[in-house]
Amino acid sequence: MPKPNAFYAQSGGVTAVINASACGVLETARAHKDDIGKVYAGRNGIIGALQEELIDTSKESKKDIAGLRSTPGGAFGSCRFKLKSPEDDAREYNRLIDVFSAHNIRYFFYNGGGDSQDTANKMAQVSRQRKYPLQCIGIPKTVDNDLPFTDCCPGFGSVAKYVATSTREAALDVASMCESSTKVFVLEVMGRHAGWIAAASALAQTREGDAPHIILLPEVPFEKQAFLRKVKETVTAKGYCVIVVSEGARYANGTFLGESGGGKDAFGHSQLGGVAPTIAAMVKDKFGYKFHWAVSDYLQRSARHIASATDVNQAYALGKAAVEFALAGKSAVMPIIVRTSDSPYKWKIGEAKLAKVANIEKFMPKSYISKDGFGITQRARKYLAPLIAGEDHPTYKDGLPVYVTLKNQLVAKKLPEKW
Amino acid sequence: MPKPNAFYAQSGGVTAVINASACGVLETARAHKDDIGKVYAGRNGIIGALQEELIDTSKESKKDIAGLRSTPGGAFGSCRFKLKSPEDDAREYNRLIDVFSAHNIRYFFYNGGGDSQDTANKMAQVSRQRKYPLQCIGIPKTVDNDLPFTDCCPGFGSVAKYVATSTREAALDVASMCESSTKVFVLEVMGRHAGWIAAASALAQTREGDAPHIILLPEVPFEKQAFLRKVKETVTAKGYCVIVVSEGARYANGTFLGESGGGKDAFGHSQLGGVAPTIAAMVKDKFGYKFHWAVSDYLQRSARHIASATDVNQAYALGKAAVEFALAGKSAVMPIIVRTSDSPYKWKIGEAKLAKVANIEKFMPKSYISKDGFGITQRARKYLAPLIAGEDHPTYKDGLPVYVTLKNQLVAKKLPEKW
Repeated sequence: MPKPNAFYAQSGGVTAVINASACGVLETARAHKDDIGKVYAGRNGIIGALQEELIDTSKESKKDIAGLRSTPGGAFGSCRFKLKSPEDDAREYNRLIDVFSAHNIRYFFYNGGGDSQDTANKMAQVSRQRKYPLQCIGIPKTVDNDLPFTDCCPGFGSVAKYVATSTREAALDVASMCESSTKVFVLEVMGRHAGWIAAASALAQTREGDAPHIILLPEVPFEKQAFLRKVKETVTAKGYCVIVVSEGARYANGTFLGESGGGKDAFGHSQLGGVAPTIAAMVKDKFGYKFHWAVSDYLQRSARHIASATDVNQAYALGKAAVEFALAGKSAVMPIIVRTSDSPYKWKIGEAKLAKVANIEKFMPKSYISKDGFGITQRARKYLAPLIAGEDHPTYKDGLPVYVTLKNQLVAKKLPEKW
Repeated sequence: MPKPNAFYAQSGGVTAVINASACGVLETARAHKDDIGKVYAGRNGIIGALQEELIDTSKESKKDIAGLRSTPGGAFGSCRFKLKSPEDDAREYNRLIDVFSAHNIRYFFYNGGGDSQDTANKMAQVSRQRKYPLQCIGIPKTVDNDLPFTDCCPGFGSVAKYVATSTREAALDVASMCESSTKVFVLEVMGRHAGWIAAASALAQTREGDAPHIILLPEVPFEKQAFLRKVKETVTAKGYCVIVVSEGARYANGTFLGESGGGKDAFGHSQLGGVAPTIAAMVKDKFGYKFHWAVSDYLQRSARHIASATDVNQAYALGKAAVEFALAGKSAVMPIIVRTSDSPYKWKIGEAKLAKVANIEKFMPKSYISKDGFGITQRARKYLAPLIAGEDHPTYKDGLPVYVTLKNQLVAKKLPEKW
């Protein structure tokens, strides 16, 4: 009887370390050749499974697999694609089981955020109902750090390190220029619903009054007057003001700050705003201060060159644990990070049931947000600080980080039907 | 007779390595204590000299001075302030000579771009006319890489490395997502007049067809149809398209692409565009592709964490050479980088007359720009490649780069008049 194969897919927005999880999965599976045959990766995530586009990872060299640990992006392709609920329409799930069955796939590893964990959970349910033996293990990933149960999410620590570093660096620039030029600098960061990334910029501070002076979180309704007052106070006291804003910052009525610039101009062309320019314009209109703004967008979540070693290690460990969970006979679970000590920082791998994880978002708790709403508390700092600790510099060649590109060879299709 | 003192000032937009030049000046001056008394730094550049706000750098520890080598921004403050021409109004120059005379300053080191070299040159002229013995040495600096004579400008190599690295990283992100999500990514970089920074993004390519697929330079008039055609071709062939655009990209009639978003909205609020969102909107309107855009702004020029070792070494060497020039009795000159070999890359310090340097901008030569205008040639690559070579990682503490903050103690004023 042939050994059972495994399926691994990356899902949703990729990160600087999702490939480190892939590396953990693949290296651990290779170390258990008696139990796991091949690991097939979905080309562009779960879409690859539906379309029977399965990447044969056994064709990749040991060196390239090891190189995944320090390569950002999703090496097999990811996707934004949510399966329909099996109660409404089970065709997608049925198709997946057909594909898995044709390729003797008995392990399903799904590396993603809340939606993906929901999918993995449903996959476990459907396969049980159809009596197809499939062990479904979720692997957490999200720069937004918004999954429940796990102490943190792989991908977040590296974005946090990027944002805190960039804030510290840009603040030095603004401080140099403020006497006769730029007085206000606005950095827009990711975080549509939860403000973890913006909050992490506060780690740039070493002393009271250091930049960032104002952090705008989605969790705190934006009050224009209070904000402008704080800008004025800061410029008066320090000569300049550094603002970090979540893309999800919003007014009390729920309107995103960035939406104001999102309409059409007189020619019917899209006016694509962004929160940073909106905030900058607000300050300019009120005080006339010279300003600059930056939107780091994909740069922040792909910045493997400034990844957090803690984050890389955890991403790898969660991939490894996922395979170990599968080999231990588990299903419908997700390995998580459990913090056992703040200082010195210690963590271990724990376990969460997918049924409980699915579709819950973890926001910044109130106790992490300063009274005025523009900063974070000591408690938040204690939580965040260890997540950016440690450097894991990639190898450089000709002045640039070396990142691997896999062969990504597809296996021959076995099913007669196309999807 | 007291030893002559020196004045050093940073001017214009700061960089990741202007403090490395400061470090070169200060360490070299300290090594020549018999010839140079104190080095006073202008607080916020030349404004500090006008206002007699002179920072006594002798109060700074050896360790902090050494730390300048790896600290971005301008440690003494910079300014955007151009002196009036002495022919029109000599009061500013006269005031400077009064301040220098009061503090026995006989060496003037001015660290900046084209305008600043012009100022340093005029300072030399005026002091000669007034028979005040002042040796004026310019130290080149500009991320835009637009000074003549010198092979490259300190600050540029590090921005180039940042932009090439970020482009490579973000491209991996987009490539992962393009099947079902983002297909077009636009990165806006600095370069109001010259496209050197945008051009350097091409170093991210290792093979034909790699990102960036389109580079928009100020030197090449923007043609919307040709651009859109190229976007379409690229998305069709590769599945995605990465575009790097200079902030100075413009139409044939000279209008900046970014200007379109720079007006006022119906409420009279500033609509602060940016080239990246303008370009993204153009693509969206034509093809409906899902897009993302980033504006790296100050992040790129302050990113000391990913500085080029070549750049850091050259910045330091130029600071050192400036002091050595002064001690050799020179004036109205600027040390420059002379390339003596491409491969292996070798350089030495040369010398340019300030009278010739002042106010000349060096653009990308035609031979560096590809035929279709959207990329660079092999010749450009040969020029650019060595400038990003080598890493010079700063020290990290608690997960973040350690940057120094100086004491910046002012010396007592000696002049009765305020400025």
